[in-house]
Amino acid sequence: MCRPSSSFEAPYNFFMEAKKLKGIIPPMITPLLDNDHLDVEGAERLIEHMIAGGIHGLFILGTTGEAPSLSYHLRYQLVELVCKQVAGRIPVLVGITDTSLYESVKLAEHSKLCGAYAVVSAPPYYYAPSQQELIEYYESLANALPLPLFLYNMPSHVKVSFEPATVKAIAQHPNVIGLKDSSGIMVYFHTLIQIMKDQPDFSLLVGPEELTAEAVLLGADGGVNGGANMFPKLYVDLYNAAVNRDIDRVNELQEQVMDISNSIYKVGRYGSSYLKGVKCTCSLLGLCSDFLASPYRKFRQEERDKVQAVLERLGYEIA
Amino acid sequence: MCRPSSSFEAPYNFFMEAKKLKGIIPPMITPLLDNDHLDVEGAERLIEHMIAGGIHGLFILGTTGEAPSLSYHLRYQLVELVCKQVAGRIPVLVGITDTSLYESVKLAEHSKLCGAYAVVSAPPYYYAPSQQELIEYYESLANALPLPLFLYNMPSHVKVSFEPATVKAIAQHPNVIGLKDSSGIMVYFHTLIQIMKDQPDFSLLVGPEELTAEAVLLGADGGVNGGANMFPKLYVDLYNAAVNRDIDRVNELQEQVMDISNSIYKVGRYGSSYLKGVKCTCSLLGLCSDFLASPYRKFRQEERDKVQAVLERLGYEIA
Amino acid sequence: MCRPSSSFEAPYNFFMEAKKLKGIIPPMITPLLDNDHLDVEGAERLIEHMIAGGIHGLFILGTTGEAPSLSYHLRYQLVELVCKQVAGRIPVLVGITDTSLYESVKLAEHSKLCGAYAVVSAPPYYYAPSQQELIEYYESLANALPLPLFLYNMPSHVKVSFEPATVKAIAQHPNVIGLKDSSGIMVYFHTLIQIMKDQPDFSLLVGPEELTAEAVLLGADGGVNGGANMFPKLYVDLYNAAVNRDIDRVNELQEQVMDISNSIYKVGRYGSSYLKGVKCTCSLLGLCSDFLASPYRKFRQEERDKVQAVLERLGYEIA
Amino acid sequence: MCRPSSSFEAPYNFFMEAKKLKGIIPPMITPLLDNDHLDVEGAERLIEHMIAGGIHGLFILGTTGEAPSLSYHLRYQLVELVCKQVAGRIPVLVGITDTSLYESVKLAEHSKLCGAYAVVSAPPYYYAPSQQELIEYYESLANALPLPLFLYNMPSHVKVSFEPATVKAIAQHPNVIGLKDSSGIMVYFHTLIQIMKDQPDFSLLVGPEELTAEAVLLGADGGVNGGANMFPKLYVDLYNAAVNRDIDRVNELQEQVMDISNSIYKVGRYGSSYLKGVKCTCSLLGLCSDFLASPYRKFRQEERDKVQAVLERLGYEIA
Repeated sequence: MCRPSSSFEAPYNFFMEAKKLKGIIPPMITPLLDNDHLDVEGAERLIEHMIAGGIHGLFILGTTGEAPSLSYHLRYQLVELVCKQVAGRIPVLVGITDTSLYESVKLAEHSKLCGAYAVVSAPPYYYAPSQQELIEYYESLANALPLPLFLYNMPSHVKVSFEPATVKAIAQHPNVIGLKDSSGIMVYFHTLIQIMKDQPDFSLLVGPEELTAEAVLLGADGGVNGGANMFPKLYVDLYNAAVNRDIDRVNELQEQVMDISNSIYKVGRYGSSYLKGVKCTCSLLGLCSDFLASPYRKFRQEERDKVQAVLERLGYEIA
Repeated sequence: MCRPSSSFEAPYNFFMEAKKLKGIIPPMITPLLDNDHLDVEGAERLIEHMIAGGIHGLFILGTTGEAPSLSYHLRYQLVELVCKQVAGRIPVLVGITDTSLYESVKLAEHSKLCGAYAVVSAPPYYYAPSQQELIEYYESLANALPLPLFLYNMPSHVKVSFEPATVKAIAQHPNVIGLKDSSGIMVYFHTLIQIMKDQPDFSLLVGPEELTAEAVLLGADGGVNGGANMFPKLYVDLYNAAVNRDIDRVNELQEQVMDISNSIYKVGRYGSSYLKGVKCTCSLLGLCSDFLASPYRKFRQEERDKVQAVLERLGYEIA
Repeated sequence: MCRPSSSFEAPYNFFMEAKKLKGIIPPMITPLLDNDHLDVEGAERLIEHMIAGGIHGLFILGTTGEAPSLSYHLRYQLVELVCKQVAGRIPVLVGITDTSLYESVKLAEHSKLCGAYAVVSAPPYYYAPSQQELIEYYESLANALPLPLFLYNMPSHVKVSFEPATVKAIAQHPNVIGLKDSSGIMVYFHTLIQIMKDQPDFSLLVGPEELTAEAVLLGADGGVNGGANMFPKLYVDLYNAAVNRDIDRVNELQEQVMDISNSIYKVGRYGSSYLKGVKCTCSLLGLCSDFLASPYRKFRQEERDKVQAVLERLGYEIA
Repeated sequence: MCRPSSSFEAPYNFFMEAKKLKGIIPPMITPLLDNDHLDVEGAERLIEHMIAGGIHGLFILGTTGEAPSLSYHLRYQLVELVCKQVAGRIPVLVGITDTSLYESVKLAEHSKLCGAYAVVSAPPYYYAPSQQELIEYYESLANALPLPLFLYNMPSHVKVSFEPATVKAIAQHPNVIGLKDSSGIMVYFHTLIQIMKDQPDFSLLVGPEELTAEAVLLGADGGVNGGANMFPKLYVDLYNAAVNRDIDRVNELQEQVMDISNSIYKVGRYGSSYLKGVKCTCSLLGLCSDFLASPYRKFRQEERDKVQAVLERLGYEIA
């Protein structure tokens, strides 16, 4: 299970071109039938849905992908499935965030065999490393990895944030090609833009979709936006409007983005509403199952009805 | 001391026009000679410097104004001094944030007598009120105030944030005319823009100057930017560029704003570096004293030299 | 209002004896008729109730005393009232915690005139000073005070904690005679005990009443326990049992303390339940009004009924 | 690697006796030669050292055991090694905390085969589950486990705390036999003692060794104390003194415990000093290697010299 099946062939390799990653790279949800089985057909449909929507890359096994809740063999299986389905049409990034350096490297090796473009790593998230420990950790990791590395700043979940000076230090490693910031702290993000000005090949992506427009207007390379699982075209259009500096269009689309953020992601009582809302919507759109891995659980019928009402108000067709 | 001197006459009253507040409204530092004496001449010079720079209003006794560190009689004296010096040229907003409702109202009454345009209040900051307690507190306060009220969201200092639904509830009071958000959380700010769309007269201002450009591009009314004490024209220009949707100019000025943010505000070791940096710069520019009220203290010579080096690099003339 | 009335005479002065403070020193609630009037008769009854219960001192204008919510003239009035009523029978400690050093000193001067034994100060609580800034602040404060000073560690409300090394540094000042720790972090408290072993006159008191027994068994001098407003004898008995190392009795009384903590202080939904519960109970016991100063508000009838049910279960007589 | 070697035989099973766990159960450090190899001989020496010191049980793969930093195959190997070495002399508890329910169950199955007494689980630590989600998660887990379960409250690392009502709900499951609280919040721990009074077979253990004495005096069953890796007899003696209510002896030993806490655990600059200090000391005592798994790293020579100086002051012999 830990190696691609024999019939698998690694596709066209984006990395060889060393093209800077830009645009909308959705953090893909992991369609599940139950705690230990992928919804394979759902995953295939979802990937096609997003590619048809114009996405520029795909990030799997991130926070939105519920990676930490999945068993290792499921994670390996998903990497293979996605790389096969994408088949080189867009770059695939694989989250290898782990508390064990060994397991991160092992998953990266599998990802390379499967044809992934790069890997993505947030700091080890049980202990809270100091900035100096982060620098040493990422030096060890980058040295051991067979694929280029994106840093993933996610302080709400991992308890530490990469300080700007730490990013700068780690970014000196040739294998480190970008950073995704999910902190939501735009002063921080602008500081990254400023200190990375002299490394124009370093890709800076923003996590929260509500911030993609302003980030791109002020220098970001794109967004890793969970909403693009559901409505890929909306976020791609927003990205393009920002790139084209069409501020009227940006504001029109931003209003839609905020509407989704304050309706679908606010159904339910817990911090998990965002994730449950995206999966529920994908299910209602006929894309895939809405099962969530433990410790989460999908919306109940009452919450599902609320999401459906939002979708109908927004004019989407329910499957 | 608690009442304007007899020679004082309240100036032209902006409030009567019910004009929506827009633009750059600096949170004025409080020039001090020592813990219990205002630097009166410095304050007058500073006010003229900012008005000459094109600011659209002036906010005194906020966090940047060190209000909580000042004795009450100094606060009263400052209100009188500023209103007199401004003399109706721009609206003056007075911070009345306090842990005691009684003291807030008393300072507001003094502010009205002095000719202030409005008052500004962050939640009482010793206990951490619940959202329901915030709603009740602000209903009591708004009922008792003789001037219109701006809410001031400042969770880092007061430990609670106004939830969007709380803002909406409080904003139903006719005396509540706007909100200044210093949380730095842009997803939150965009939510406020969205939920206040049906109250177009409600003014939404952003605190951190690093976020003014994007906030204005996406619907904010302006910025309460501490850097405008030092360089008022820079922030006014940035605001205008955003209003005019001149994205090239926005990026050019934003780079200067980030440069200041990451140099002057990063001298020194503590969280107080922003405040010390602004006061030190104003002193170096020949505007006013750099004394800080206890528990803070001005930069030592070594730190002052670093600030001077930054100013020289940026091309400013040292007094 | 800011000075004791002419008929007032400072009582017997404990401070002259330099006796180390030990035992149960309740943080007195402030009986209020409304936001701006003391419940004078209630306060007098409450004081007599606590002295009859055997308390060893009285701490007014602390967190439990709602000091930050009171206007200054009410605070001055309360100091006078309490010192007069206590009339030298036990030492009175006055909370002078403030964001303005000037106002802290002024209230301390009034307290001395009224005959208080000492003052108590938590760090200025709007800005969050660094440890070095705390040391400098308390040096300035202790130099300016006319009465000995207790430090008050209260990180939940003031956002910073005195680090042990900071306590040690400040405790070198001859005016600093003790510390009350309301952090609830017993590892921290044990560290204070350890580092203050060479200053045996320094008084170490613990805030949360649930921790008084173990703190005293392991070296503390006493407790500043809010429950002693309601049931002074219970906490005095617990203190004595710990001093006498009667562990059976300690466990028996500790169970009662935990019962109160998990019933009366858990009525209601907010963080303010402790304070509301104490005031409601004092009202039900016929001691004083249960009015709370803004931004808080007393329990409604439904919550009051729940507190009454607890008191009846515990065998207390309702007034 | 995931199954005990064929020569392995499960020892005497404590679980069959359903004896309540009491006393000192050290969280064993994991002796490592490098990131991917156990220090087998060191682990054997360390186990014998602790058993000779009188410990009542052994907890492996906890926070002190660096479990999250170890690869899975190392974790499996360690369970086998420890169970074999202990050989039924004391109960072995195995930490199965994981973000993936599947991996937790799999490790528990291995632990049962190896002869472990029970497993220990802190909440899944990437996402922060709500209290309701915790209840559902632990119901699923307890149903799937082949061994009895200890809950592990560790909010500093997993971001959530078991609320008392949640503990009570989960403790209804017959497989849940105790809780280890490493929060350091004694008010919380006393509440657990209170609400679990009607389930006298439920074992309540305290994490921080600085709190073991007071916890046991007031009703706890024992301590999971990291210092017992180095000095098992000290913590066993302290536990016994508390059980025997010999307060003089408790205070004498507590002073030694605090001395260790404020010297060995304070060498170095980071939050990891406790763990580095314990491993360094075990190395200096000739027990095992001081290698720490990434993202941590052992003390450098300078810090090691400081630890050695402490050990010499305390009268321990350096290997």
